[in-house]
Amino acid sequence: MAESVEPDGVAVADPDYRAAVVDLLGVIAYGEISAFERLAEDAKLAPTLEDKVALATMAATELGKVAGLHERLAALGADPFEAMAPFRVAVDDFHRHTAPSDWLEGLVKAFVGDGLANDFYREIAAFLDPETRDLVLSSLDDGDQAAFVVDRVRAAIREQPVQGGRLALWGRRLMGEALTQGQRVAADRDSLTALLTGTVDRPGLDLAALGRMFTRLTEHHQQRMADLGLDA
Amino acid sequence: MAESVEPDGVAVADPDYRAAVVDLLGVIAYGEISAFERLAEDAKLAPTLEDKVALATMAATELGKVAGLHERLAALGADPFEAMAPFRVAVDDFHRHTAPSDWLEGLVKAFVGDGLANDFYREIAAFLDPETRDLVLSSLDDGDQAAFVVDRVRAAIREQPVQGGRLALWGRRLMGEALTQGQRVAADRDSLTALLTGTVDRPGLDLAALGRMFTRLTEHHQQRMADLGLDA
Repeated sequence: MAESVEPDGVAVADPDYRAAVVDLLGVIAYGEISAFERLAEDAKLAPTLEDKVALATMAATELGKVAGLHERLAALGADPFEAMAPFRVAVDDFHRHTAPSDWLEGLVKAFVGDGLANDFYREIAAFLDPETRDLVLSSLDDGDQAAFVVDRVRAAIREQPVQGGRLALWGRRLMGEALTQGQRVAADRDSLTALLTGTVDRPGLDLAALGRMFTRLTEHHQQRMADLGLDA
Repeated sequence: MAESVEPDGVAVADPDYRAAVVDLLGVIAYGEISAFERLAEDAKLAPTLEDKVALATMAATELGKVAGLHERLAALGADPFEAMAPFRVAVDDFHRHTAPSDWLEGLVKAFVGDGLANDFYREIAAFLDPETRDLVLSSLDDGDQAAFVVDRVRAAIREQPVQGGRLALWGRRLMGEALTQGQRVAADRDSLTALLTGTVDRPGLDLAALGRMFTRLTEHHQQRMADLGLDA
């Protein structure tokens, strides 16, 4: 793709915007690598070989998105591994603080955690140039893999209703930890915050609009918990 | 692919041949799943994030081949998971007996172990109908990932020549364990053996040709060890 070598001259000529895009692609790419690791690890907990292959396939899908993000970072003149480096601690801490203790917790985390991250990136995508936006949106597409998780979690709760309460608490913990680490990244990376809130030259969200964005994120989270048959 | 639904009527009409193909696709598919698990696990030992991503990409590539093998098994009227079941113990035992104790052992195993298995499947492919043969050969293609392993292992030995002796022993152990488990599968699955040695209706290898095949497998193994800078 010759276009990617010199992407969107106008937008990327703004150094603040470029820094924000490099940050965004870096955090998404590291998030995918980290999701691969976690899903591959959780696949070990699978009760059957079919379930193991399903989760391993989700892991491989996540990793498959990294190359495109790295290519775009390189096209922007950034080193992909340097771009990911600032986000390793926050993403790793998120996973360390939310290590699933069993197969069901792993499934809920795959669904709720990735869903939350994807919603957030989708919100940010609205402020990107078209080429970067398409790349970000395509890296969030996880096909029909969510249906597998919903099916397994609902079946487990049907069989053992007591699981519902435990997993509902787990979902809340995932949300809390995601907000904690998200806040940490926001405080640390001005460029990403500026992408959302705007600068002198670029429009962004005012406080009321930011509030509405968080409401949307929360509502989508609640919807996902409901899809799993869990109280948010 | 409408063709896959009723593949190669003539060849597959022979129940012995069909059983052999189901066995072969089953063992290759389970081998890929198992390679995914092992590479994803070994990726944790990577000294850098770059190395981790390289090994994780190899893992994802292996898993990506499973779907095609499963589709072909389903097209042959076989349940993919039942087809893999007879090979789980031998493949799992191989991996349990050859768990790498560090990053370099993991790299050598990825290169030498997969190379050996691929050579063997390539030999068997000569006795398959064209459609199955193409599928098997395409599932063995691992692109340019081997170059990464060769580069890393050679660099490590250059830096610490003492590693060479240890890794050479490790390569011999991998070969020995592969032969042990391969023999176990052969003794257990007459259909696969018959594919190589032939039946009344189908030509196969006589003892002298089988001997030459083992010589080729050994020579290729020695070449791979030499590529890594190791004595076979």
